[in-house]
Amino acid sequence: MFLGKVIGTVVATRKYDDLEGVKFLIIQPVNHRHKPIREPLIAVDTMRAGPGELVFLEDGREASFTLDKSFVPVDAAVVGIVDSVYVD
Amino acid sequence: MFLGKVIGTVVATRKYDDLEGVKFLIIQPVNHRHKPIREPLIAVDTMRAGPGELVFLEDGREASFTLDKSFVPVDAAVVGIVDSVYVD
Amino acid sequence: MFLGKVIGTVVATRKYDDLEGVKFLIIQPVNHRHKPIREPLIAVDTMRAGPGELVFLEDGREASFTLDKSFVPVDAAVVGIVDSVYVD
Amino acid sequence: MFLGKVIGTVVATRKYDDLEGVKFLIIQPVNHRHKPIREPLIAVDTMRAGPGELVFLEDGREASFTLDKSFVPVDAAVVGIVDSVYVD
Amino acid sequence: MFLGKVIGTVVATRKYDDLEGVKFLIIQPVNHRHKPIREPLIAVDTMRAGPGELVFLEDGREASFTLDKSFVPVDAAVVGIVDSVYVD
Repeated sequence: MFLGKVIGTVVATRKYDDLEGVKFLIIQPVNHRHKPIREPLIAVDTMRAGPGELVFLEDGREASFTLDKSFVPVDAAVVGIVDSVYVD
Repeated sequence: MFLGKVIGTVVATRKYDDLEGVKFLIIQPVNHRHKPIREPLIAVDTMRAGPGELVFLEDGREASFTLDKSFVPVDAAVVGIVDSVYVD
Repeated sequence: MFLGKVIGTVVATRKYDDLEGVKFLIIQPVNHRHKPIREPLIAVDTMRAGPGELVFLEDGREASFTLDKSFVPVDAAVVGIVDSVYVD
Repeated sequence: MFLGKVIGTVVATRKYDDLEGVKFLIIQPVNHRHKPIREPLIAVDTMRAGPGELVFLEDGREASFTLDKSFVPVDAAVVGIVDSVYVD
Repeated sequence: MFLGKVIGTVVATRKYDDLEGVKFLIIQPVNHRHKPIREPLIAVDTMRAGPGELVFLEDGREASFTLDKSFVPVDAAVVGIVDSVYVD
């Protein structure tokens, strides 16, 4: 899993049927010091993350478990909204 | 998931049986500013994406869920056609 | 699988329901000479790894097998605490 | 999925039992202009791809679907032999 | 799948229960010319690979199929011992 910042939204009318109503966010992955790492990706969001919010994500088969229908072609999801990051 | 532009097609007569009739597109991954990122990949398409169109894709086990038969060796799929990308 | 050092913790009150009570660590991947490789990631931990400890991790669908509920959106887990690394 | 050129073969007598008789090719991934990208990988082949042939591959859990036994530790497979690549 | 050389061992007393007795090797990935590529990784081994031996590996969900219990958090496995590599 990794940290990311919500930087935008993707709108797609024509899409895989069971993804109707699903929210697609553009996420900039960041490290624990909030520094951008890698290129942004698209992730589904059921946590109601707002613009600029720090979230944590996972990418893989399990991403779809956050949705009502889980046999859908989705590979990244917001899993939680980050309150704080403690570095030892 | 990630954004991509349709840049070509792959034709293969000799292939895994259950992939008969499946459309294989060459996709150039792009970021939310339409700038190419990474090398192009091949993805199955059931959304009827046209040349040059901006699509969003996913890569992983779930890609095959977009096909009629889902126990097939496919690891990337066009999931939707992008109408607009909003950057905060 | 790979080696990593525990460098922090992520706290998230608002998260996917079945992840309630799960511990999320920030891990710096290291090689067998303890040299940092790649950016840190977030992994679930059920091994009670402490700050600075050398652990080994796996990332993928199987990470959730370390948790009580395994159909959860988790893609990296601490699998063990390393006692020693022998290099031939 | 991605394009690749067959550049060799791996022979292994001592291997996981259910992989007896399976053909392992060394594949050089190439882009749609036939330019090598990334390091070569090893993929199973049931398509009878010959030396130098342009194939397309997939890597992931689904690779084993090309084999008779699909619960085997295999993560890349030749999926088809490429006839032509059209770039728009 | 990819080639690798056995360069060490990881010992971990405190680990995920069902991994008791499993052997964890440190593997240096190499290309078909035996040149190191990427950072070393940790893989389970049931093939009794010895120090310095050339093996081939796979990384992914399927790695655990080489173990007696396959619902375990393991993502890389030695699949065979390489006898010879033929490059065309």
